[in-house]
Amino acid sequence: MRLRVLIAPSGFKESLGADEVADCIASGVRRAVPDALIHKAPVPDGGEGFAQALVRTVGGTLHDVTVTGPVGEPVEAYFGLLDPPGGPAGQDTGPTAVLEMAAAAGLRHVPRDRRDPLTTTTRGVGELIAAALDAGAARVLVGCGDSGTNDGGAGMAQALGVRLLDEAGEEIGAGGGELARLKSVDVSGLDPRIATTPIDVACNWANVLTGPRGVARVFGPQKGADEATVVRLEEALERYADVIQADVGVDVRTAPGSGASGGLGAGLSALLGARLQPRFDVVTRYLDFDALLSRTDLVITAEGAIDRQSARGKVPAEVARRAALRDIPVIALSGTVGEGVQAALDVGLDAYTSILTRPCTLEEALEEASEFLVCSAEQTMRLLLVGRRLAWQETETR
Amino acid sequence: MRLRVLIAPSGFKESLGADEVADCIASGVRRAVPDALIHKAPVPDGGEGFAQALVRTVGGTLHDVTVTGPVGEPVEAYFGLLDPPGGPAGQDTGPTAVLEMAAAAGLRHVPRDRRDPLTTTTRGVGELIAAALDAGAARVLVGCGDSGTNDGGAGMAQALGVRLLDEAGEEIGAGGGELARLKSVDVSGLDPRIATTPIDVACNWANVLTGPRGVARVFGPQKGADEATVVRLEEALERYADVIQADVGVDVRTAPGSGASGGLGAGLSALLGARLQPRFDVVTRYLDFDALLSRTDLVITAEGAIDRQSARGKVPAEVARRAALRDIPVIALSGTVGEGVQAALDVGLDAYTSILTRPCTLEEALEEASEFLVCSAEQTMRLLLVGRRLAWQETETR
Repeated sequence: MRLRVLIAPSGFKESLGADEVADCIASGVRRAVPDALIHKAPVPDGGEGFAQALVRTVGGTLHDVTVTGPVGEPVEAYFGLLDPPGGPAGQDTGPTAVLEMAAAAGLRHVPRDRRDPLTTTTRGVGELIAAALDAGAARVLVGCGDSGTNDGGAGMAQALGVRLLDEAGEEIGAGGGELARLKSVDVSGLDPRIATTPIDVACNWANVLTGPRGVARVFGPQKGADEATVVRLEEALERYADVIQADVGVDVRTAPGSGASGGLGAGLSALLGARLQPRFDVVTRYLDFDALLSRTDLVITAEGAIDRQSARGKVPAEVARRAALRDIPVIALSGTVGEGVQAALDVGLDAYTSILTRPCTLEEALEEASEFLVCSAEQTMRLLLVGRRLAWQETETR
Repeated sequence: MRLRVLIAPSGFKESLGADEVADCIASGVRRAVPDALIHKAPVPDGGEGFAQALVRTVGGTLHDVTVTGPVGEPVEAYFGLLDPPGGPAGQDTGPTAVLEMAAAAGLRHVPRDRRDPLTTTTRGVGELIAAALDAGAARVLVGCGDSGTNDGGAGMAQALGVRLLDEAGEEIGAGGGELARLKSVDVSGLDPRIATTPIDVACNWANVLTGPRGVARVFGPQKGADEATVVRLEEALERYADVIQADVGVDVRTAPGSGASGGLGAGLSALLGARLQPRFDVVTRYLDFDALLSRTDLVITAEGAIDRQSARGKVPAEVARRAALRDIPVIALSGTVGEGVQAALDVGLDAYTSILTRPCTLEEALEEASEFLVCSAEQTMRLLLVGRRLAWQETETR
């Protein structure tokens, strides 16, 4: 019987995309077990590469669109249309569009010298959604992560016809800073297709819009905000939440995921009626992960670092949790094994191993990650073969 | 059925002794497989710690002796007496003494500012052998390695009554440089107990006394010789070999092991009639390795670095070779996995893994080796358990 291996890694930040990680692991597995039946299901995290990864794994096409970038200049973005049946099994009603907010408003589109979260906008995300609707999408999946914006999704909503008005009844400008002047929200002009098009949002549920764990405070600094800017942003987002509650009747302040991608989650859910969901719940549903697991003997997952955090919503732990429900063994490969990794075992991971093979700097590890991964996957499989041999010997001597 | 694990590592140079490595691996194994039946057989390499390791594994006592150190000042050395039956199975005739030349003449006994291989002496090694004989040893096992001398074992032989004479018939002085003045060898005064006491020498068979791969050229520099000194030493050792051939009738020039420990191998074999043997052949015989293997399901070995070299006479390869003959799986843990490691698989190693868990410097790796080892051994066993589980599943579905 051939060993059926499901390879479901995340990407290695600053080093390899999830699909590249999966390819490396597959090579290593084949070196040790040439006849293994390998299925690759790289798990995107919502950010950079989300649409490509889903299109590649599920099947579909990518479509280029020029949209307004986060600093107002045009950027080349794209969305994917998944092949039918596409989308969650049994819920298909037409082509599903998948897009990542980072394609239109990612941090990589914000030049270092223009990193001002008071002004960057998600307008391009709205334009991308509109383009997907123009292409006939019957449902939309938006991935959050790697954003360069902090406007609460205001620009996105405006691009789709929502009016955000100041005291004088004039439309406010671009960026999170402008939200401080917000007086009312008018959703009557929203693109009518939105009402009939389900929108799923894959986001990190730990991100909330306001408060001590809000996006201004937690993510503002990495998007270029100094302390004064963080305070201004937090006040602006609080105002945004107040107005949304008053005019739309929804409290987005600390709703799970409302802070995703600089508050884009809040705009998507309150103004577009999108459904925010923990990213790996959505992704594994779209990847039809349960069906994959039903045909799997062994799961190999991976992440750049495994530590205490990993048990809370990172790929290896989420993969392990799902596999453990079916009693399928899961192994994680990782560049760094950090403090508190025990927590990852507690959620169902059976074993982990670092891919490193020699003392090296982080930079060297990032640079040689693919080689490390291949070798590590090979030796991991060799260890499994030893374990299997031990079992056979036990069987024989029983 | 409980899993029987034989732990047979070498030491990690500049970090952990072989016994410490074995302890760490055992801890890790127990974390994953609490009921494993563990037998520790750390494999000493002939150098530092050789006597302690054998006494600890086989059973026996250590005895302190003050001897002449390599630079002429007294050093505290020791030898071990193995518990009866001791020695190679079936060949026992009384207590076996084990000693390492490094205890009396090791490089660590030569202060950095006195590293002159022209003058350092193995006299203390002869004194240590004499002390072992005084203690009633019926056979002697000498470990070579980590030497600080280059005198061809001349000092050792002199300490036991061999006379090394110059042109004028006077005894030559201490150190390899003096051998250039050697004219004749007179073994008539040799301690008579030597003739009736078998002496085994555990050494690296690749080390020869003279020629391009001779000890002066290969090891002289690390013992403090500059190029001129290397040439003088080589000439002196050639003269030593000439005189030995003329007066004793033995050609020690390129005999396997003749260059062990700065030529101590040559002196032991030609002047004392000792039997030079590849170190791991001797060690595994004394450890009764074959008997251990007959009661083992899995072997875990380890070394600081595994690479192309490992296939040629290093511990993991030697352990793997012996285990492979009995079809017992062998896994190696290592700090660094280097180029050409494939060669280690070719000699019987089933899998290897690096113990590192994060990017770090060599210094950090050395410092934290014990923690790395414990964690790595645990995860390695966890991987074996996964492999065993896969096998059981296969069995069930057959």
